[in-house]
Amino acid sequence: MSSTYGRDLRITIFGQSHAPAIGVTIEGLRSGLRVDTEALESFLARRAPGRAAYATARRETDKPEFLCGIVNGVTTGTPVTAVIRNTDARSGDYAALLHKPRPGHADYTGWVKYGDAGDFAGGGHFSGRMTAPLCVAGGICLQLLEREGIRVWSHIASIGSVKDEGEWPSAGAAGKEFPTLSEEREAEMRKAIAEARAAGDSLGGVIECAVVGVPAGLGDPMFDGMENRLAAVLFGIPAVKGVEFGAGFAAAAMRGSENNDAFAVENGRVVTRTNHSGGILGGITTGMPLEFAVAVKPTPSIAKTQETVDLRTMEPAEITVGGRHDPCIVPRAVPCVEAAAALAVYDALLADR
Amino acid sequence: MSSTYGRDLRITIFGQSHAPAIGVTIEGLRSGLRVDTEALESFLARRAPGRAAYATARRETDKPEFLCGIVNGVTTGTPVTAVIRNTDARSGDYAALLHKPRPGHADYTGWVKYGDAGDFAGGGHFSGRMTAPLCVAGGICLQLLEREGIRVWSHIASIGSVKDEGEWPSAGAAGKEFPTLSEEREAEMRKAIAEARAAGDSLGGVIECAVVGVPAGLGDPMFDGMENRLAAVLFGIPAVKGVEFGAGFAAAAMRGSENNDAFAVENGRVVTRTNHSGGILGGITTGMPLEFAVAVKPTPSIAKTQETVDLRTMEPAEITVGGRHDPCIVPRAVPCVEAAAALAVYDALLADR
Amino acid sequence: MSSTYGRDLRITIFGQSHAPAIGVTIEGLRSGLRVDTEALESFLARRAPGRAAYATARRETDKPEFLCGIVNGVTTGTPVTAVIRNTDARSGDYAALLHKPRPGHADYTGWVKYGDAGDFAGGGHFSGRMTAPLCVAGGICLQLLEREGIRVWSHIASIGSVKDEGEWPSAGAAGKEFPTLSEEREAEMRKAIAEARAAGDSLGGVIECAVVGVPAGLGDPMFDGMENRLAAVLFGIPAVKGVEFGAGFAAAAMRGSENNDAFAVENGRVVTRTNHSGGILGGITTGMPLEFAVAVKPTPSIAKTQETVDLRTMEPAEITVGGRHDPCIVPRAVPCVEAAAALAVYDALLADR
Amino acid sequence: MSSTYGRDLRITIFGQSHAPAIGVTIEGLRSGLRVDTEALESFLARRAPGRAAYATARRETDKPEFLCGIVNGVTTGTPVTAVIRNTDARSGDYAALLHKPRPGHADYTGWVKYGDAGDFAGGGHFSGRMTAPLCVAGGICLQLLEREGIRVWSHIASIGSVKDEGEWPSAGAAGKEFPTLSEEREAEMRKAIAEARAAGDSLGGVIECAVVGVPAGLGDPMFDGMENRLAAVLFGIPAVKGVEFGAGFAAAAMRGSENNDAFAVENGRVVTRTNHSGGILGGITTGMPLEFAVAVKPTPSIAKTQETVDLRTMEPAEITVGGRHDPCIVPRAVPCVEAAAALAVYDALLADR
Repeated sequence: MSSTYGRDLRITIFGQSHAPAIGVTIEGLRSGLRVDTEALESFLARRAPGRAAYATARRETDKPEFLCGIVNGVTTGTPVTAVIRNTDARSGDYAALLHKPRPGHADYTGWVKYGDAGDFAGGGHFSGRMTAPLCVAGGICLQLLEREGIRVWSHIASIGSVKDEGEWPSAGAAGKEFPTLSEEREAEMRKAIAEARAAGDSLGGVIECAVVGVPAGLGDPMFDGMENRLAAVLFGIPAVKGVEFGAGFAAAAMRGSENNDAFAVENGRVVTRTNHSGGILGGITTGMPLEFAVAVKPTPSIAKTQETVDLRTMEPAEITVGGRHDPCIVPRAVPCVEAAAALAVYDALLADR
Repeated sequence: MSSTYGRDLRITIFGQSHAPAIGVTIEGLRSGLRVDTEALESFLARRAPGRAAYATARRETDKPEFLCGIVNGVTTGTPVTAVIRNTDARSGDYAALLHKPRPGHADYTGWVKYGDAGDFAGGGHFSGRMTAPLCVAGGICLQLLEREGIRVWSHIASIGSVKDEGEWPSAGAAGKEFPTLSEEREAEMRKAIAEARAAGDSLGGVIECAVVGVPAGLGDPMFDGMENRLAAVLFGIPAVKGVEFGAGFAAAAMRGSENNDAFAVENGRVVTRTNHSGGILGGITTGMPLEFAVAVKPTPSIAKTQETVDLRTMEPAEITVGGRHDPCIVPRAVPCVEAAAALAVYDALLADR
Repeated sequence: MSSTYGRDLRITIFGQSHAPAIGVTIEGLRSGLRVDTEALESFLARRAPGRAAYATARRETDKPEFLCGIVNGVTTGTPVTAVIRNTDARSGDYAALLHKPRPGHADYTGWVKYGDAGDFAGGGHFSGRMTAPLCVAGGICLQLLEREGIRVWSHIASIGSVKDEGEWPSAGAAGKEFPTLSEEREAEMRKAIAEARAAGDSLGGVIECAVVGVPAGLGDPMFDGMENRLAAVLFGIPAVKGVEFGAGFAAAAMRGSENNDAFAVENGRVVTRTNHSGGILGGITTGMPLEFAVAVKPTPSIAKTQETVDLRTMEPAEITVGGRHDPCIVPRAVPCVEAAAALAVYDALLADR
Repeated sequence: MSSTYGRDLRITIFGQSHAPAIGVTIEGLRSGLRVDTEALESFLARRAPGRAAYATARRETDKPEFLCGIVNGVTTGTPVTAVIRNTDARSGDYAALLHKPRPGHADYTGWVKYGDAGDFAGGGHFSGRMTAPLCVAGGICLQLLEREGIRVWSHIASIGSVKDEGEWPSAGAAGKEFPTLSEEREAEMRKAIAEARAAGDSLGGVIECAVVGVPAGLGDPMFDGMENRLAAVLFGIPAVKGVEFGAGFAAAAMRGSENNDAFAVENGRVVTRTNHSGGILGGITTGMPLEFAVAVKPTPSIAKTQETVDLRTMEPAEITVGGRHDPCIVPRAVPCVEAAAALAVYDALLADR
């Protein structure tokens, strides 16, 4: 099984890229919470396909229909289910792929697991499209966190070899369609993407995310620490191949005296002078910004011809991936990372009460 | 809550560093499985303190007593519980620390969460000592995996700025007390540790791990993928601050055409020519080695005087950490990473049946 | 939380009686399983309202739409979601009830839990209507079990003071709209229901259920025994107030020598001469029919005027329940019990593999 | 798996009757809770064997050792583990039984599930002895509930055909070693047990339990209702074969107008004039006493010779059960039922906060 995340707030995601619909059930939202549908749709628009040069031309309105759990914009306390219809699916694009797995995709592993009965058109249940219901659930949590003074900020730290520049953490990129701190670097990144697309290729990148305003004391030791909780949902976003907290891999090259964050008092509360721990010690939040970075691999769907295997004959084969694909998924992955962070933090917040 | 990991194989870890005992309950092991106690104790010895220059002088035999679930070395099918007595605890070393949290440790966050009633002597339930029961459970899984031809290899990829060298993945470092591929680099690493210790400081490092012989098809999409499952247990090891799979963060700088692993046929089975995916696509194993790396931060306990806060007075304070500590936890963390990997893979293997 | 049941087969039920839709997500069905939609709809028809004199006049087609997880009638291996639209909801019938809780209903407890934001029209998420998605999921499991030679039989053991007669367990009542073994007793039961209805009152009853063909060895000791698993889902059917296995409460009055089921050999396999244990010893199936009975309370919605409290004023009040209600829910509860049994047994069957 | 119960308070029970020890890990107790060890041991003494004429002669002190999670009688907030050593195990008594399953016991089903490697001496993990750790965990919860004004009362409603008499619910039998309301009936029950014992036979009975002082609003709809939660733990007590709430099976013979509990106002709060619902509507507590009854089957271990099967030869065989057994387990089961009730209610209480 696979599609359920969370403990006190629990989401169950369902759907396939080319099924009638995808959606999510959210359990654990108490009654009486107002959901701002308009704000939610704006948030979802940041993830939605079909808007920018770097994104797939597939057009989906991605407007969720709430089947239950919300009456007049307010939660009832019982499960909330939202569905999004798949209106622009073209399964025909994928018919030829069934037995010639696309490199870098889940076609082969899905086929090993589910056989010919698996539905892999457009990636099936493995599709990046499954992040739309993730963003519905996470988008609601973002609103709820905001009302408690907790904000989720992120920016594109790099695309290919182009690195963003600017003070971090900051709200500087919040809500932007292409969220960078530096406009100059944004232009370079866009150019790099355009070049990759022209070459029939694709680019990956790194997203940095910070959750500010988190109270100290969230998370639990060992397997329910904030690192565990965040990683468990972040790796649910297709294409995420690495997660690090605070100084992360760089901490491995530091000395203890450099990496340790000295405690101090500021405005009557305990803070740390640096935040190499990413706001987490022993799995529990320190009250400093919760900071992490995720590595997003380059979109595996590229126009170039690639080597594969015909699974029926077990003979080498070539494949040229048609369909409509993003040369760089990173900008659209940013709201997914924010949604995932919001889910993990809101779940931990509920556990703490 | 915190101390339970796994789904079809489920472990619950209990204990504090200075309580009478620590231990683990393992559910889901079928009956009739032979546990080689001697091999298990050898494995545990790699994690045990008190053996090497880079390790704490605390001496614990760390020999598990099996209270139930194993009769004459064979599992009964019902829960297995092992306990390890804490015989060399010196709580006195920690009495002074209660209200002066050590930078980089969970003292402050534990205190926020549990208050004065929390037992933080020696790190309490947050102590690195809690990895001993993790290694008991994981050590059993390592034996069970080995019987199915699945092996877990690892090496120290770096300590501080010293990087290991050699062909990877390989069994070259397997079972070594200081597991590197290159003897030369091992000497340099040991020297770097000695220097850090002499300076009253500490070092971190990176551990690379590969699970070879894993069948294709393990893991599930979305939140139960192998990345999610592995990360959820690996971040349970204190000091782990980053996890990446395959090319990981490096993949973020590659083009799709570089990062995609081309499919090919070898000896009648599907393989990939490269393994940038770390043997995982869509959360599911490809049958190639499952490869990942973890970042281990430098031991926070250092001899140098550090800035902290007195939590009773909320005044700045200084702290010099006494007790007995490892200047570099990385070599002892290697078996913990192997144990964690074995738990995640064995659990996924059970789920697949 | 509330709406999730099962471990290896996991269902999540969502919806409210008067929301746009109700539905269920089923996780854990392997790929390649054929679902006979026609047979499923016939099964659902046994539960559906609006067909008989003893049932509510509310008309719902209760035809599930499968949003995902099934392609061309075959499971894909990823989550299956089915929704049923609420087409004949008349919330107006309930507007007056919001602050005058109906005796025997969840109006008061739901209001305590969720406040005014809770949606209690028609029972909301507490409605008997929520058993429709339960029957969708259970109906699929019934088909899967049947293919393995496992059948779920049931009959109405009593309605009010009228008791059914006949050999039990038997297939004698299987699939009947009013499932009794004796036609004579059926007539008496129908008459009793008609009398209760005429009196503005309602009746309850007892349903006996047997699962035959279950292999020995299903279930686990302690909290995952078959009794625990079955009770956990059966008490999810509104109106169920008691569950007993085998001789059940009658066993409490027997001597050990009477109640113990002697072992014997029949056709080369171990059987018991009697089945007072209901086919379960130590939580685990013996291979004999799994037998249990559930007590169904009389429908709380009655035409008679009843005492209640106005929750706004905390003054005594009277209530006359309008709307459309069943004078006896028992016949429609039979397929729900069968669905619940099938879910529990199929889940245990998956766990055993 | 089997041995874990609860969601916000989670217990994991381990051990076999003749292993070195049995025990329990409790997760979810917040820090700073005082545990009265003396009161706990008094409670455990009510369950302990070897004290009365109706109980097994096996002598175990059943004194729990707390390995962790409690320092100076106060919880630390991290997992609490208690172990009870098995000091008076005589496995020899059981050697002959391995392939001749005792009727009414889990010997046969355990063997089917675990094979010869299963440890069934004295019932193994299926033994009534496993209720000792259940009582440790539940006994702690009883103390915690009491401090919030919530009390668990119970009495033996019947043994064999002898029924207790007296006003119910009441504290009349609380804490008694043989908990009845009527002393006369107690004498009759004791006599019936003595007669059964003399005849080499055994008796069962019914236990009624009430939890008073429970706030309205505990529990959740569908599968996490209080009925589901209570049944899931009560059926974990060996020998429990039936559970009913409020009027239970008797409700099935009532009319709606009789069974419905009219709402009224008393001292400014909502009450019901009767309590046929057992204090639960829609799975959620009404604030009235939570009332339920459990059916306990007669002890299967009887002195009479019984028919069985030799599992090695599949030939009919006879068995005379040696060992030390209770002719009636009911009095010792009373604290187990109270412990189970306390666990379910405390868990629901935590969920509600």
